Amino acid sequence: MFLYQPEDTITALATANGIAAIGVIRVSGPETYAILDALFTGKKPSEQASHTVHFGRIKDGDQELDEVLLTLFKGSKSYSGQDTIEISCHGSPYIQERILELLITKGCRMASPGEFTLRAFLNGKLDLSQAEAVADMIAADSDGALKTALYQMKGGFGKEISALRAELIDFASLIELELDFSEEDVEFADRDALVKLIEKILLATQKLIASFRFGNVLKNGYATVIAGKPNAGKSTLLNALLNEERAIVSEIAGTTRDTVEEAIQLNGVLFRFIDTAGIRQDSDSEIEKIGIGRALEKIKSSAILIYLFDASSESVESVEEEISRIDLGGTKLILVANKVDSASAEIQENLKKRRDILNISAKEKDIESLVIALNDLAKEANLGSTGSTVSNIRHLEALSATDKALQAALNGITSGLSGDLLAEDIRSAIHHLGDITGEITPDDLLGNIFGKFCIGK
Amino acid sequence: MFLYQPEDTITALATANGIAAIGVIRVSGPETYAILDALFTGKKPSEQASHTVHFGRIKDGDQELDEVLLTLFKGSKSYSGQDTIEISCHGSPYIQERILELLITKGCRMASPGEFTLRAFLNGKLDLSQAEAVADMIAADSDGALKTALYQMKGGFGKEISALRAELIDFASLIELELDFSEEDVEFADRDALVKLIEKILLATQKLIASFRFGNVLKNGYATVIAGKPNAGKSTLLNALLNEERAIVSEIAGTTRDTVEEAIQLNGVLFRFIDTAGIRQDSDSEIEKIGIGRALEKIKSSAILIYLFDASSESVESVEEEISRIDLGGTKLILVANKVDSASAEIQENLKKRRDILNISAKEKDIESLVIALNDLAKEANLGSTGSTVSNIRHLEALSATDKALQAALNGITSGLSGDLLAEDIRSAIHHLGDITGEITPDDLLGNIFGKFCIGK
Repeated sequence: MFLYQPEDTITALATANGIAAIGVIRVSGPETYAILDALFTGKKPSEQASHTVHFGRIKDGDQELDEVLLTLFKGSKSYSGQDTIEISCHGSPYIQERILELLITKGCRMASPGEFTLRAFLNGKLDLSQAEAVADMIAADSDGALKTALYQMKGGFGKEISALRAELIDFASLIELELDFSEEDVEFADRDALVKLIEKILLATQKLIASFRFGNVLKNGYATVIAGKPNAGKSTLLNALLNEERAIVSEIAGTTRDTVEEAIQLNGVLFRFIDTAGIRQDSDSEIEKIGIGRALEKIKSSAILIYLFDASSESVESVEEEISRIDLGGTKLILVANKVDSASAEIQENLKKRRDILNISAKEKDIESLVIALNDLAKEANLGSTGSTVSNIRHLEALSATDKALQAALNGITSGLSGDLLAEDIRSAIHHLGDITGEITPDDLLGNIFGKFCIGK
Repeated sequence: MFLYQPEDTITALATANGIAAIGVIRVSGPETYAILDALFTGKKPSEQASHTVHFGRIKDGDQELDEVLLTLFKGSKSYSGQDTIEISCHGSPYIQERILELLITKGCRMASPGEFTLRAFLNGKLDLSQAEAVADMIAADSDGALKTALYQMKGGFGKEISALRAELIDFASLIELELDFSEEDVEFADRDALVKLIEKILLATQKLIASFRFGNVLKNGYATVIAGKPNAGKSTLLNALLNEERAIVSEIAGTTRDTVEEAIQLNGVLFRFIDTAGIRQDSDSEIEKIGIGRALEKIKSSAILIYLFDASSESVESVEEEISRIDLGGTKLILVANKVDSASAEIQENLKKRRDILNISAKEKDIESLVIALNDLAKEANLGSTGSTVSNIRHLEALSATDKALQAALNGITSGLSGDLLAEDIRSAIHHLGDITGEITPDDLLGNIFGKFCIGK
């Protein structure tokens, strides 16, 4: 594994692969300046100030490889916290490969994924939750995801967690002290103050745990099921939504390959639309019943249900009857009448009176009212959110484990549990809190986190 | 057309599209600093020195979009020759799109392909042949192409052409003066000196014209035909060559779709291998005859012919008989015995004695001797080359036209042509020389040249 080799000077292409105007190659580590001093025809990088840019050529012996700009970052002033130079060269994959090759023959090693950020973490430039936010930032594909990642990158709830953990450590050491003097039956740790602290931490962790549902939504989009009878026009609606201006469309590589999922951004909010099989409840086919069962499950676990019906052939009453049989759980319902333009004047008149039913024509791409309703629901959900939003499942797990340990400690105190068992619960809580910010992090976890980064970051 | 709008502030993503550690957005033009002053949370860019780097965030009103580094280039010290800022942001296509959008709402315009380089040309930072070399640099896919492009980017033969052209202009003005005084029959322009100058220019242009064959080879690879009977193992050989370490493989989208062409780099030299149909000369089929005719043509126009035969079934004599009937022109021949390991001991013995025949086994990928022979031939060809190499067909055409005009002028002088006809020939030569460096360049030509660039360059 690559971990903890800060004496290596590492390099990688930091920009995307492909032909472009420019490409940027990063070099970071103790030998950075010695290596570039020897390869650069311009002013010696080692003799220039940090945060300055210099024009020159990269040469391999007698052969010049490219005209480049070097951007210098010295010591702790760099992203990684080590001497760093960024080489801005022409955007030719061939030239980039030649320069990387040259750097490697001169003593650099190809960086592993995320290794520059790992060094930033190891050098105390970022805590672990901030480092993870960097990867979220790069993967961001909506304003919400971007906002959460940026907040987290700036420190986010990491500082709060760190402070609470430090307080808990103080108590833990007092309790450990009690254990040393166990025969004397002393109490160094004030139990009332401890209960207060645990309750304060529980409040914070529970708030963060509750924010995950929203944080997850920001990252992956509001799960929105489109349901209705087979001919209601579900696919036409999905296509109309896909055609919305500024829509970013991508197929989500999820586990549920039996439903079509498309992530679409509408006015800066990401929705993940799930097109289900029809949900006729009177089907006799076993296979169809399984499909319907899955659709119903999907609905329950989603944020929003768009129930679509064909206004020209289905009556509002029959639709309401169908919906009444669906277990919505906490899912918000949007009832949508499609093909209204093909319905009779009487039906159109009646539908207009129903404020809880949206009238659209998916075929004519007349879906503005639905887009507004979706954004309103998203805004509603956002109201409950503070800046501290957990969007990372690893953090959720650590918070849940902390919560569980602290609850046990709390119960232990009230039921007069012995000091050593109490100490163990508190140690466990400290451990899990430390997991989030990386204050206690086993190597394999670091490998797992940084291995998912881009190379060059 | 976009030309000559230097008052616009332009922007574009300068790095390749895709998820990566970082991406770079370029902004250039008079409003660059005013726009970034308003969007950047760090120190005001307008108040910082050129060639410095600053950390901060890009904000769209209240919303922060990303943590970025700004690199500042002021006025004529920038690539384009105008105020320029490079924004190094996270390599998320979504973030890049958001930042570009923001820049556009604040008054930037999306740059056209090559527009930053066009501005560099219009601002006198580069001549036209240097600007064209930038595009060659980005497209470079071998050491040879890179070397030629870099030489040209540094000024190359542009300066020489410019100087010769200036001398010619001096003469031209004297001849024009004669025309004004034509009734007085004076000669301001010394004819002997003019002849000397024309001869000097002809020497230079002819040298450059001659260099094109080599320049073209650097850019597109040494055309190397692989010929031989259908079962000699031509395709196996091609595959073995493709498997060579460091091989960069790409199919050339050429005009001759009836032959397979693969560009492969062997030890830093680019070869373009052309796999022909078999060339049995005794075919009766009309269609096959046409194919064979084309193969023979290909051979004549190529740099190298690899003639491959099956040592286990073809005799050296019969092969030499076949080759003697091929018109090689200036093409270098490499005679290669394949499947030597399957041939009888006697044949193997005889083949070893023939120093002009390489023994390989394409199937076993035992082709090292052939790779060495190819590189030797390439080196031989390189010996004739100087630094000034023309690799651009537009330059070749301009040089040829100059050559023609100067030859006419020379003939005119010796045959006592009238001053006005002589003046026209010289004006034509001046015009064509100016085409190369862009001293005289119609707008549509500029559009054509820069339109082929990447956006962002």
